[in-house]
Amino acid sequence: MKAKIIITPKKAVVDPQGKTVQSALAHLGYQGVTAVHVGKYLEIDLAPGTNAAAARRALEEACHKFLSNPIIEDYRLDIE
Amino acid sequence: MKAKIIITPKKAVVDPQGKTVQSALAHLGYQGVTAVHVGKYLEIDLAPGTNAAAARRALEEACHKFLSNPIIEDYRLDIE
Repeated sequence: MKAKIIITPKKAVVDPQGKTVQSALAHLGYQGVTAVHVGKYLEIDLAPGTNAAAARRALEEACHKFLSNPIIEDYRLDIE
Repeated sequence: MKAKIIITPKKAVVDPQGKTVQSALAHLGYQGVTAVHVGKYLEIDLAPGTNAAAARRALEEACHKFLSNPIIEDYRLDIE
């Protein structure tokens, strides 16, 4: 079982890394890019037989407490 | 239209950031985590009316050339 977590800066927060990628793409001739947001991706392998609901609860807590900064970041957690 | 790019270290490559998160989770009492891989996530907003096939070609090239390091990283590109 795998948990996939995507952490992105909130829309209202300045994202200098995204701006840099956006201007780099423009300089290199890639047209039509209106915005770039850069975030983190975590793939967590869970031991076989782990309870999905319990894993989700624990990982939601971990995301909120220390994997993301909830003041400036959003996260999305998928367990599959 | 949005392009979503996930860049992860190849499985054979040492991932110190993933190892750190894994041991932090274990120290904090989260059981059952067998591996953690940390990567990057890019969300690229494309101008309305962009040709999806052309955008995919351009972004595949950008991923290969400078968004990822193909020697040590894999990428996955989704356009939706």
